[in-house]
Amino acid sequence: MKQPKYQFIFTLIILSYSNWALGFDILQALPSTPITPKSNPTTSEKVELGKQLFFDSRLSFDGSLSCNSCHNLSAGGDDDGRINILSNGQLKRSAPTLWNVGYLSVNYWDSRATSLEAQAKEHILDPRVMNMRSALQVTQRIKAIPGYRKKFNQVFKQQDSVSLENIAKAISSFERTLNTPNSPFDQYIKGNKKALNASALKGLELFHEVECMSCHFGVNFAGPAPGPALKMGDAFYELFPNHLGSHYEKVYKLADDLGLYKLTLEAGHKHLFRVAPLRNIALTAPYFHNGSVSTLEEAIRIMAFVQLKQKLSDEQVRHLVSFLNSLTGEFPQISLPRLPDTAGTTLSNK
Amino acid sequence: MKQPKYQFIFTLIILSYSNWALGFDILQALPSTPITPKSNPTTSEKVELGKQLFFDSRLSFDGSLSCNSCHNLSAGGDDDGRINILSNGQLKRSAPTLWNVGYLSVNYWDSRATSLEAQAKEHILDPRVMNMRSALQVTQRIKAIPGYRKKFNQVFKQQDSVSLENIAKAISSFERTLNTPNSPFDQYIKGNKKALNASALKGLELFHEVECMSCHFGVNFAGPAPGPALKMGDAFYELFPNHLGSHYEKVYKLADDLGLYKLTLEAGHKHLFRVAPLRNIALTAPYFHNGSVSTLEEAIRIMAFVQLKQKLSDEQVRHLVSFLNSLTGEFPQISLPRLPDTAGTTLSNK
Repeated sequence: MKQPKYQFIFTLIILSYSNWALGFDILQALPSTPITPKSNPTTSEKVELGKQLFFDSRLSFDGSLSCNSCHNLSAGGDDDGRINILSNGQLKRSAPTLWNVGYLSVNYWDSRATSLEAQAKEHILDPRVMNMRSALQVTQRIKAIPGYRKKFNQVFKQQDSVSLENIAKAISSFERTLNTPNSPFDQYIKGNKKALNASALKGLELFHEVECMSCHFGVNFAGPAPGPALKMGDAFYELFPNHLGSHYEKVYKLADDLGLYKLTLEAGHKHLFRVAPLRNIALTAPYFHNGSVSTLEEAIRIMAFVQLKQKLSDEQVRHLVSFLNSLTGEFPQISLPRLPDTAGTTLSNK
Repeated sequence: MKQPKYQFIFTLIILSYSNWALGFDILQALPSTPITPKSNPTTSEKVELGKQLFFDSRLSFDGSLSCNSCHNLSAGGDDDGRINILSNGQLKRSAPTLWNVGYLSVNYWDSRATSLEAQAKEHILDPRVMNMRSALQVTQRIKAIPGYRKKFNQVFKQQDSVSLENIAKAISSFERTLNTPNSPFDQYIKGNKKALNASALKGLELFHEVECMSCHFGVNFAGPAPGPALKMGDAFYELFPNHLGSHYEKVYKLADDLGLYKLTLEAGHKHLFRVAPLRNIALTAPYFHNGSVSTLEEAIRIMAFVQLKQKLSDEQVRHLVSFLNSLTGEFPQISLPRLPDTAGTTLSNK
């Protein structure tokens, strides 16, 4: 278990404040491709295999869930408030969007996975999610499907290459293609000053003035992206709620989940969460780690109040909504994969 | 409630026996398009809308199920043995495939829907399935999504045209495109005598000799298709099990479900089911109305024994499997739809 890097966090806060003085240069258009780890180079065949696995509910023990069940790629890449139902009440944290996830340095609300590969492996074995009992069981399940056996060997260029490790690699490669470039905001940042309407522009100014941007900056508005100076996995934590005891906190049970503390049991880690990315935020209601807030308007009001002690006017909220709407990008066309079959029999029938 | 037409059934049996003398001419290649009711002409815009609705879990009360959840178009168009899990134990009958469903004259295991439109409407309101409480609730839910409102008006060429009726029409139009032509069997029937291998050819002969074909004939191997002489909705019922009291019946609980009787409570309707279609049967394990049989081999043995009092040899079963494998067709490429959003809010959050 990696400890949160406080020194790193403080550096970032200072960095972020100094950038605040400079303006918007800590905001960036979406780069054309996300960073790909050397240990898992992207190939088109691997992406195709990863897509099949992403849509294949045979990766869950009882065949009830595929990755796409909770990260719906027909919509916001999230669970649309269905997490309790989909996990039979076992998961308490909303499934974050997978769109542009390749640009994040960490995964999970508590940042505990420092790569997409680690996240995929954990989800497949998590008893509350896909519930496979062991890496061996996953391997045996997928190996029993002739089409996968063949495809894994082609993709990974060696015999007998079905493994949880390679399953996670293929899924992650597919996930690195789930990018939504060319939002109105991206067009604006690239120089098309007409891409944002007057309200969105006011929203961008407010985003700066209200200091949303002191945490929500960088490619995905989620703090630092991995780069030459940062190792993949460096996490940017935030206290949420930052100011305890508000009315909002009670209504929406914002402080019930102790965040990183649940993982580390260190007192200093109470209420620490990663900074949530904001791209396509208009499509990922309901909001916050517990999915308790149904509208973006209310989420903005709450963030301003419980994080920054500011009470926004309705007009300010409207402008911030306009700005956040401008972060909705263009979605790639995805063809529905055909899953390799087990002719004349099934693996899911218990 | 329509009564099963016994006279009609007997005519068909006679017809089928006379055809038996003539050979295989009651088998047919898949026609290029299914029959479309005059009241719901297919248009490409309607198909596109129907595809969105098909993948949209907002059509279920708690947002947990879309049509595709139980009729998985990445695979056999069925539930792959997951029906109990997907319906929280409420559904006892396996979800039949939707591939080539436009060529069926009736829907449901008990044939109670005489059109795809009727089936779609019933499923959306069925408390055990999508569980919407009323047509009004469905209409309001879909009307609340601006993109749908606009698209319905374009497709149905009138204002305010979101309705359960039109939702069912759009979904049915999409379903009529779910066809898998050009199976090895189709190629064979069209004259390419090399399309079936030696084992599949022996299987086809056995299919005739063992008398599987006395029920499984016609376009979809499910008995009569609607045509000039038959009205849409004429049903071809079969007793299953035909011979009661077998070992198989006990092991697989084949007689626990009383079929059409559950709907009509007429003594003569006990154990009556529609004849199941056989196209792509290799991809739709587990088998039978209760999904109790995991393999096609075992399903063939059971059908021969409980329907026709024949005990097949392993070799015969193997050949019949080869023949049934030849009914797997070519699947159309389907692009994953993007669902219209409700920016900044959600409908599914309860």
